[in-house]
Amino acid sequence: MPENEKVQEGMTRPKSDFSEWFSEVIAKTELSDLRYNVKGFIVFREWAVLCMEEMYRSLEKELQSKRHFPIWFPAVIPEKNFTKESEHVEGFAPEVFWITHAGGEKLTEKLALRPTSETAMYTMYAKWIRSWRDLPLKLYQRCQVWRYETKATRPFIRSREFHWIEAHDVFATKEEAERQVHEDIDTTDKVMHGKFGIPFIPFRRPEWDKFAGAVYTVAADTLMPDGKVIQQPSTHFLGQNFARPFGIRFVDRNEKEQIAWQTCYGPAISRIFASVVTIHGDDKGLIFPFEIAPVQVMIVPIIKSGEEERIHAKCESIRSMLDKEGLRVSVDYSENSAGWKFNHWEMRGVPIRLELGPRDMERKQVVLVRRDTGEKQNIPEKEIYPAVKETGASLTHNLVKKADTWFSSMVRSAGSMHELETELDKGGFVRVDFCSRDSEGRKCAEKIKERLHAEVRGDRADRHEAPKGKCIACGKKATVVVYVGRQY
Amino acid sequence: MPENEKVQEGMTRPKSDFSEWFSEVIAKTELSDLRYNVKGFIVFREWAVLCMEEMYRSLEKELQSKRHFPIWFPAVIPEKNFTKESEHVEGFAPEVFWITHAGGEKLTEKLALRPTSETAMYTMYAKWIRSWRDLPLKLYQRCQVWRYETKATRPFIRSREFHWIEAHDVFATKEEAERQVHEDIDTTDKVMHGKFGIPFIPFRRPEWDKFAGAVYTVAADTLMPDGKVIQQPSTHFLGQNFARPFGIRFVDRNEKEQIAWQTCYGPAISRIFASVVTIHGDDKGLIFPFEIAPVQVMIVPIIKSGEEERIHAKCESIRSMLDKEGLRVSVDYSENSAGWKFNHWEMRGVPIRLELGPRDMERKQVVLVRRDTGEKQNIPEKEIYPAVKETGASLTHNLVKKADTWFSSMVRSAGSMHELETELDKGGFVRVDFCSRDSEGRKCAEKIKERLHAEVRGDRADRHEAPKGKCIACGKKATVVVYVGRQY
Repeated sequence: MPENEKVQEGMTRPKSDFSEWFSEVIAKTELSDLRYNVKGFIVFREWAVLCMEEMYRSLEKELQSKRHFPIWFPAVIPEKNFTKESEHVEGFAPEVFWITHAGGEKLTEKLALRPTSETAMYTMYAKWIRSWRDLPLKLYQRCQVWRYETKATRPFIRSREFHWIEAHDVFATKEEAERQVHEDIDTTDKVMHGKFGIPFIPFRRPEWDKFAGAVYTVAADTLMPDGKVIQQPSTHFLGQNFARPFGIRFVDRNEKEQIAWQTCYGPAISRIFASVVTIHGDDKGLIFPFEIAPVQVMIVPIIKSGEEERIHAKCESIRSMLDKEGLRVSVDYSENSAGWKFNHWEMRGVPIRLELGPRDMERKQVVLVRRDTGEKQNIPEKEIYPAVKETGASLTHNLVKKADTWFSSMVRSAGSMHELETELDKGGFVRVDFCSRDSEGRKCAEKIKERLHAEVRGDRADRHEAPKGKCIACGKKATVVVYVGRQY
Repeated sequence: MPENEKVQEGMTRPKSDFSEWFSEVIAKTELSDLRYNVKGFIVFREWAVLCMEEMYRSLEKELQSKRHFPIWFPAVIPEKNFTKESEHVEGFAPEVFWITHAGGEKLTEKLALRPTSETAMYTMYAKWIRSWRDLPLKLYQRCQVWRYETKATRPFIRSREFHWIEAHDVFATKEEAERQVHEDIDTTDKVMHGKFGIPFIPFRRPEWDKFAGAVYTVAADTLMPDGKVIQQPSTHFLGQNFARPFGIRFVDRNEKEQIAWQTCYGPAISRIFASVVTIHGDDKGLIFPFEIAPVQVMIVPIIKSGEEERIHAKCESIRSMLDKEGLRVSVDYSENSAGWKFNHWEMRGVPIRLELGPRDMERKQVVLVRRDTGEKQNIPEKEIYPAVKETGASLTHNLVKKADTWFSSMVRSAGSMHELETELDKGGFVRVDFCSRDSEGRKCAEKIKERLHAEVRGDRADRHEAPKGKCIACGKKATVVVYVGRQY
């Protein structure tokens, strides 16, 4: 880092200037570079990728514990597969990148670059599934997908290429498939909420806002610090909508041929990362939950001249000890001042800093500083590992709790269009009685959209809420409680 | 698995019928499905992906320990980047898939689906590198690449889409960059040879066979069981060939602007997997090295009726104990017979089987069977974990040793074209004196190619060998010892 860049190092925008803060933190901590010369495509840089790889590991571990297996399908889908399910093709066609040539030749059939993999995978599922013994079939792949977004792109939140997991499950019965929808919500809860600290509400989307080709969609909505809604993993109950055209059939225990039932689930790692950055960050920069931090512990030597060697040797022995315990740990040996290093790694969100100077050497201790509270503790040398583990767990716990408290405060109710507007202006979700989540309700949703620039996100999938009054938009008897918010 | 499929379960081809054996083992152990409806693209199935994910982990760990960081670049490259380095574009143009449309629109600039990422990454490297302080820059990505192969495709070995790692490194000096070439060979040796058990020779390719745009290429060649040569990871010394057109420059310690030096390294995971399958497999099917096995330990309960519950409970407690130790372990609770299970998991290459029946329960032991030698041991309950760990290490060690011994026997010498032909017919590498590895030697290489259908693979990059006689093809004074083989 050249001298003259050192001075500008820290964050200059407070998090309350959210949009500027987000851009600044991405640039200063080098999470991505937006200057790649294809519109809508960005480079995901080291500090973000190290974290996203840990996020993949957490999610894949949870999926595998729920008996999913990994698979890799081709990234290209022939046009004839793509057009088999009519609602699906209609929904996705405007967003598809098409490969038409290879080498010097024109291809005989153009190929879609996968925007999602239903139509790639289900042709093969039809070959693999023969009998009830082959079910359930639960497979997932980690991969990229490409969508020609016409909406404005924002790094990590919406771009023309993103990194996700897609799980595609097949069952013998409707009941098992619907249970899977709830298992997927549980996965989002255990991992995205429990480990990454992102609170959410699972909404059953209204009929007019479901996944193209699904019977219904449940999506996990969370909030950005400015109170805008952002969609995180969704899970779709596909019913037999794809199984029919793709011919996914099986012979049941009574030797009768049946059509299979399906679900799919799509957590977008790069987008969840945006929530991790924005929900936990503060005026100083990033704060990573301990489990997914690119570096969990940064050791900073406090050098007194003449003592470099002794101090470096001790730092190295602590590093090696923590590394053997399986932690991601590093020592900053650079020539920058200790103060510069503190700021640098705080901005980059390293959960725990260990400082080690001559006085600490004498006292056989280190100073442990945690990123979320700034709290300092002297830790005897022999207790470093347990102290780090405990502080790491406590930091994650604290981030989750803080996020939950804030999130709860962002859910309110309204009894009229006027109240709805007032509440929407404060950000977050507004709970209202509504006429219908089926297509009859669409007009009312459009009215809310036009007048208040807000969307009906759906009704809760995790609990039943009974409406007490009339639809906030049309005044007819309400049949459902929905949540309204302004989308990112 | 339906009853009538059980009967055909085992392998029917001996490994000596190599080509048929390879097809059969892929189909029977469900490593991939070749029926995907785009030519040259295959589906990588669960059993293969679980192993390849472990292979990624091993390789990434080694790369990170050598101070590489992960990054994710876009999969699309604008045509204008792609054409910047003239030799590179000439080499790759015939193999590129082109995206020309998106949604309903024609793109203003067509996009290459990356066949390799030099031209995507180096435009950004030019922005990131300013000073000697920014060097070395060592980044890698795990990703897929797409090449419109015109040669016949074979599963895992050559297809139009493959899964690899590409590392792209930048240095201040030529010396450092050339050291990196040797560090890359060391990585291949430590991981592909040491952990996956694939022996190889690193060859400096002759001038006419280097990577498009490189100064020179070193490639790790290994052999298939039929004695044919297959190229594994290669590392390229790019010199300043890309740094010049892409403008990768830096200010050195004396404030002078310099052009950077580069290398790149590309291990193809899906292709290395082909070597793992073919080198270690036997007449019964697959044998996985312990570290990368999809399942490392399979527990098979030997059921006596009335005792199911007790035996299953014990199997579960052993599974859970080994799982906590971090092993990949499973119990086969299916209704198939014990004999069927033994054959099934042997064919699928699980390194260690634990059998547990009523007699073992009484004696507080399990029977441990290792896949490579078939050796059986009674292991007291308390010693299961250490016995599994030790047997696992011993199995991998044995696979490496066996492969090395075989590989050594496949390297021979020849002193004339006639001898060369005789030796080539036996398979493997044939060592010959040769006129030149520079372009003067091309004619002689072509002569060998035409007459003997074999390629000059290059001279060894790991040691210097002095030629003693004349070029085997033209009779001029030899300047180099090269190895000839028939390529897969």
